[in-house]
Amino acid sequence: MTTEQAIFLVNGEQTDRISVTDRGLQFGDGVFETIRVHQGKPVWWQRHMDRLLEGCRRLHFTELPDTRFLQKEATDLASVCATGVLKIIITRGCSNSGYTAPADTPVNRILSLTPGMRHQSRAGQGIIMGICEQRLAHHDTLSGIKHLNRLEQVLARLQCQAEGWDEGIMLDDQGSVIEGSMSNLFIWREDHLLTPSLQKTGIKGLCREIIITLAEENGIAVEQTSLRFKDLANSRGMFVTNSLIGIWPVVNFNGQQLAVCANTRLLQVKLEESICSAG
Amino acid sequence: MTTEQAIFLVNGEQTDRISVTDRGLQFGDGVFETIRVHQGKPVWWQRHMDRLLEGCRRLHFTELPDTRFLQKEATDLASVCATGVLKIIITRGCSNSGYTAPADTPVNRILSLTPGMRHQSRAGQGIIMGICEQRLAHHDTLSGIKHLNRLEQVLARLQCQAEGWDEGIMLDDQGSVIEGSMSNLFIWREDHLLTPSLQKTGIKGLCREIIITLAEENGIAVEQTSLRFKDLANSRGMFVTNSLIGIWPVVNFNGQQLAVCANTRLLQVKLEESICSAG
Repeated sequence: MTTEQAIFLVNGEQTDRISVTDRGLQFGDGVFETIRVHQGKPVWWQRHMDRLLEGCRRLHFTELPDTRFLQKEATDLASVCATGVLKIIITRGCSNSGYTAPADTPVNRILSLTPGMRHQSRAGQGIIMGICEQRLAHHDTLSGIKHLNRLEQVLARLQCQAEGWDEGIMLDDQGSVIEGSMSNLFIWREDHLLTPSLQKTGIKGLCREIIITLAEENGIAVEQTSLRFKDLANSRGMFVTNSLIGIWPVVNFNGQQLAVCANTRLLQVKLEESICSAG
Repeated sequence: MTTEQAIFLVNGEQTDRISVTDRGLQFGDGVFETIRVHQGKPVWWQRHMDRLLEGCRRLHFTELPDTRFLQKEATDLASVCATGVLKIIITRGCSNSGYTAPADTPVNRILSLTPGMRHQSRAGQGIIMGICEQRLAHHDTLSGIKHLNRLEQVLARLQCQAEGWDEGIMLDDQGSVIEGSMSNLFIWREDHLLTPSLQKTGIKGLCREIIITLAEENGIAVEQTSLRFKDLANSRGMFVTNSLIGIWPVVNFNGQQLAVCANTRLLQVKLEESICSAG
C-alpha cells in the first residue's frame, strides 16, 4: 500500500501538507482513530467518535472537534472505495512556544483514506506471535485512550519485523500481559474467554468491546482480568483483534503450535455479520 | 513570540509544510533538540548532536542524520539573528502503513529558527514552582533521550499555567523527584548540590551536564542521587536549568519562600561565561 493511493484532507482542504508547528508533530499532542471502511462506509462510527472525544477531554483540549462535521468529511471520503482504512488525527493545533499550549488555538483535523486493507488477512490461516521486549509503562492520565505518543508500539513492531512475527505481546513493567503491539488479546480457558483488564496502560480497542458483547450474546463468558505469561502458555487457544483486522487466531505462540478453537471461528463469523450490518 | 517570525527549513527547503504521513506526527516517532542561539551561533552544538544521534540510535533508526550537513543548515539559519531558539526535529520519515516502519525511508529533518528568547528571563528575580500532579512513567528504552512523545510534559505545563507557576516539579510513579516540566532541578544541601540521577525516566539536559562540570570546577560537589519531596522541602535553596533559560533560581516552592544562595549566583555567572565562549 503506497502513500500515492491515499487521499488526505487537512482541515477540510484536499492536501497532505500540514505546518511543522502542529503540536502532533512537536509533542505527539493529539489523538487518532483508525477506522475500517466497508462498502464505502466507516464502520462503528459512533464508537470511534466516543473514544476520540474521550481522548480530547482527557488531554484537556479547550476545543472539541465537531463530530457532525467530521462525519460529513469522513462519509464523503469513504464513499470513494468499497474497502479501505480511514484514519483521523485530531491535534491540539499549532504553536511555536514549547510545551505550553496556547488556549485559543483551533484543533487540527487530519483525515486520510487508503483504499484496500492495510494488512494481508490472517483470519483463516492464523498468525505467529511472540513476546516483545518493549514494555508498556503505566499512565494514570493516558491509559486507554488512543493518543499520538506511540513509541512503545513502534519499537515493539520493529522486533516483530525482525523476528518474523505477525504480532507481538506486550507486558507492562510488572510483567502483566497487556495487549498486542497493534491489537488486543483474548485467550481461551476451558469454554470462556479471558482478556487483560487495561486499568493502568494499553488501548481499549473498539473491536475488543464488540467481541466482549458478541461473546456474551452467544453464551460465552468473558472475564476482564490480570494475565501473566503462564496464563498464555497454558491457554488452549488465543486470538488478537482490532478494528481493521477483525479476529486473527494465534496458531504459533512463542514457538508452540496452537489449535484454533471452534468458538474462535464462531466469533469471526459473528463479527463479520456485525460489520456488514454496521455503518 | 509568533509563528510568523520564525524561519523553517524542511529537508533543506524553506517551507513550514510537511507531509501528514510523517511518523513524527503519526506516532511521535522522532527526536528533537532545542538549541540556544547566541551572537548568531548555535551554542553547545556538538553536545546537542551527540544527544540527537544517541536518540536516533536508541530508536533504532536505520539511517542517522548527517550532522555535518545539519551543522551547515543550522549555522546558516542561526546567522540571521543575534539571539534566538533553534529547534531541530529528526523523524523516522514518512509512511502510511501503521506502526511498522519501512526500512528504506529517509529520515525527515525539520529546523526552525525563532528570533529572540522563548521565555522572559527569570534569572534575576527567580521563579515560583509547584509540584505537578502528572507523573513521569519509567521507560527502560526511552529514558534520558529527547524523543517526541511528550504528552506528560504537555499535561504538566497545563497545570503550571492554571496554577500560575513558572515551573512545576514532576515525580515518577514511585514518588521520586525527577525534573521540572521543561527543566532539570538542582537543590542545595549545606554547601553541595544534589540533582536527580535520571536512571529510569526524565531527560538528561545538556545544561544539567554543563552545570555539574562548572560546579565541580568551582569546588562545589554535585551528587546525582534519588530525591524525595522532603528533600526539596528541607532544601536551603534550589534552581532549575535548561539550554534556553540557563539557571533560574526558585524563590517560592510549594508556597514557601526560598532565598537565592550566593553560589547559585556564582554558577549563573560561570554559565554565561561558558555560553559566551561556546559556539
